[in-house]
Amino acid sequence: MHKHLLAAVAAVSLALPTAALADNHADPLSAQADHALHHDEAAWDFLEGITTEVGPRQAGTEAEARGRVWAMAWLEERGFANVADEPFQMQTWVRGEETAWISLPFEQPMHITALGNTASTGPDGIEAEVVYFPSYADLEAAEPGSLDGKIAFISHDMRPTQDGSGYSFAGPARWTGPGLAASKGAIATVIRSIGTENHRTPHTGGTSFPEGVEPTPAGALSNPDADNLERMFTRADGRPIWMTLVLTPQWLGETTSGNVVAEIVGRDPSLPPVLVACHLDSWDLGTGAIDDAAGCGIVSAAALNVAEAGQPLRTIRVLMAGAEETGLWGSEAYSAAHIDEPIGVGMESDFGADRIWRFESNFRETNPDLHARLAQSVARFGVANSTIVATGGADINISRDQGGAIIDLQQDGTRYFELHHTPDDTLDKVDPVQLRQNVAVWTQVVGILANEAGSIQTGE
Amino acid sequence: MHKHLLAAVAAVSLALPTAALADNHADPLSAQADHALHHDEAAWDFLEGITTEVGPRQAGTEAEARGRVWAMAWLEERGFANVADEPFQMQTWVRGEETAWISLPFEQPMHITALGNTASTGPDGIEAEVVYFPSYADLEAAEPGSLDGKIAFISHDMRPTQDGSGYSFAGPARWTGPGLAASKGAIATVIRSIGTENHRTPHTGGTSFPEGVEPTPAGALSNPDADNLERMFTRADGRPIWMTLVLTPQWLGETTSGNVVAEIVGRDPSLPPVLVACHLDSWDLGTGAIDDAAGCGIVSAAALNVAEAGQPLRTIRVLMAGAEETGLWGSEAYSAAHIDEPIGVGMESDFGADRIWRFESNFRETNPDLHARLAQSVARFGVANSTIVATGGADINISRDQGGAIIDLQQDGTRYFELHHTPDDTLDKVDPVQLRQNVAVWTQVVGILANEAGSIQTGE
Repeated sequence: MHKHLLAAVAAVSLALPTAALADNHADPLSAQADHALHHDEAAWDFLEGITTEVGPRQAGTEAEARGRVWAMAWLEERGFANVADEPFQMQTWVRGEETAWISLPFEQPMHITALGNTASTGPDGIEAEVVYFPSYADLEAAEPGSLDGKIAFISHDMRPTQDGSGYSFAGPARWTGPGLAASKGAIATVIRSIGTENHRTPHTGGTSFPEGVEPTPAGALSNPDADNLERMFTRADGRPIWMTLVLTPQWLGETTSGNVVAEIVGRDPSLPPVLVACHLDSWDLGTGAIDDAAGCGIVSAAALNVAEAGQPLRTIRVLMAGAEETGLWGSEAYSAAHIDEPIGVGMESDFGADRIWRFESNFRETNPDLHARLAQSVARFGVANSTIVATGGADINISRDQGGAIIDLQQDGTRYFELHHTPDDTLDKVDPVQLRQNVAVWTQVVGILANEAGSIQTGE
Repeated sequence: MHKHLLAAVAAVSLALPTAALADNHADPLSAQADHALHHDEAAWDFLEGITTEVGPRQAGTEAEARGRVWAMAWLEERGFANVADEPFQMQTWVRGEETAWISLPFEQPMHITALGNTASTGPDGIEAEVVYFPSYADLEAAEPGSLDGKIAFISHDMRPTQDGSGYSFAGPARWTGPGLAASKGAIATVIRSIGTENHRTPHTGGTSFPEGVEPTPAGALSNPDADNLERMFTRADGRPIWMTLVLTPQWLGETTSGNVVAEIVGRDPSLPPVLVACHLDSWDLGTGAIDDAAGCGIVSAAALNVAEAGQPLRTIRVLMAGAEETGLWGSEAYSAAHIDEPIGVGMESDFGADRIWRFESNFRETNPDLHARLAQSVARFGVANSTIVATGGADINISRDQGGAIIDLQQDGTRYFELHHTPDDTLDKVDPVQLRQNVAVWTQVVGILANEAGSIQTGE
């Protein structure tokens, strides 16, 4: 805590970035990072601007296209070079009507939202008996054919976790649950929202059906509705529970999405760039503030801060990927288009805007000096070193495809799944103080990387 | 705190109500109240049962009628006498489609819900420029005719308050704001939700239009949407903001609602009864857990507890009023039907299920001995005495109409307006520990009142 206090004191004295610096922050980059901790304006402006002036930006829709136009204008206004939209084609699914109600024995409506890539019930809906599975494992244990003509209810419950591991625990209920239920005969599936809060705002998200299994309608109930349905099974005392479901999503066919790219050009553009990524699309229910306008604001602000501290050696390339939510279309398109252009290191911000608490790389053993320098550089912001091997996020497929260097700046995800993929993903959920800590940490790390002459992966 | 601890210790020893009692809780009534603090089952069962097996119970609809049937069966099963449905007629308004979106200059959808008693836009909706009023006073200051053809946006903001006084501060924006805007020419009104949280769940509630002013469409935006619209006014920098609004509520005409009544018959039924009230209807958006199944559970459980401690002298009459939310129809009907039958004292529980923190009566000066005894009797539950004169809640019009004795057991309302009139009014929002404190306090107070021989108002 002592160092942290010193940093805060130093930052307070940095109303002018050119002011005298404490010894341990004598370099312009560290001073810039400290300054960002208290004075970020760019990340918030991006976040507020795109959520207010564009709002939801669903993959493949005209709203996402407006998001690209908005982001490019912002990047150009902020002085980025080589701002471009790199278009790609995708299959686009959009939501329709969505209602659910229990018709027997306890009549009442339920709050539901359709899952991405699912089929329509048709406008007249379907009515069927509900079969209750407390967990994913219970569904796995069901006999083939046992769900013929039924609606499966997977109530697999999720707890908050700081490192996001609760998503791996509960996520399969959404990712593959509807497909698994369909393979056992279910005509539709409802799941408990993959979320950790108790609001009447169901969590959407993509699902996929295995080859040979016809997609069915599937939706997520809000957590209070899932609780209620569970209680109904207790109170019905063996009487069957019937649900009526109207979900009318549709496929729009092939539409155009795009990746927005922009650069801070380095002094030696022949060196492989530092890639800082986020995604520009969002689910349609919220305004995509924490998922992922915040990430785009953070990486862009950090790139600007590094430039402010002096033109970096390497180019910093910002990638605001399109169409992440519905299947990483943009990340795959970027990798396919640029696979032959080596990336120096890939990093992504896509886990909200709460504080970074852990530093991870995948070159701790191959370039221990750089790993240690980076970890040490952000310790004053409360970020711990880690031996976990970074694997990167959804938007940097290219780094994984190239087998390149990756850094994960792990954000605190305790609150993230209260908001994830819900209407509640709005600007007011972002804590400006924590957002600034993200910008400070990213500034520090990206700045060191962008000024590294040797290979980031090996030090050579 | 000392007394509180003693009470807790005493309660722990009361696993059997017949066990030896600490000196200060030697009487069966106090022992029963202490027992309720840790062992209530009835209030929770009512609350869980009606929210699970019936759900929303909008005034004048078949859902409210199912609520009455359910509640009467529950009261009979629990041993109440004279369980009855006292029907009355009312004018019934129901919600239709409700969507809103900003069409210019920043296109995006907004979450809205219609306010009770408002008009329809028709299925094609209306599109008009929005005029922004930061507070109710700003709308009051607008010139007559200045809103011709416009949509008024009243963004009057609400803070949480323990005593609920924030509702008086912000409430007029809903209660009379749309009527005021209409009187100045507005063709529709949107208000910031009368609520203190930042979820995407708008707060409904009734409004009324002054005589001679034609009702217009009107709805509440969720707080995050109202924030967003405010930011749009800043970012639009003078450009007009246009909203498209589709709200299609309708009047069903005259339908039947009813008051459910039930009694614990006293040893002397000639004495004016103790009236304990709540309301059975709820808004349609949630399941009416805190508003007001909790209140009905609390007053019923308390009446049962008093009976458990020995048949009381006076009759305790439970009134589960119908149609409170859309205009106190049930409370008025009850008063009209029973105005000639004197009530000994009226009490209501209709402010959620968080702890009671203050005791108020309207007979502190006319019957100081009883007031002091009652206040002292609940001090061990953390309830403070008060000089505030009780005025009673919405469901005990009869006590006000008769000029009778009234007690208010004030609940902590800090959280109440996070949930009030939203889809989030569901069972999971009720804290069972705090609910039990309510039952304990009500048991103690109702028990003393029901065994009081003299006039509650004067002691004579």
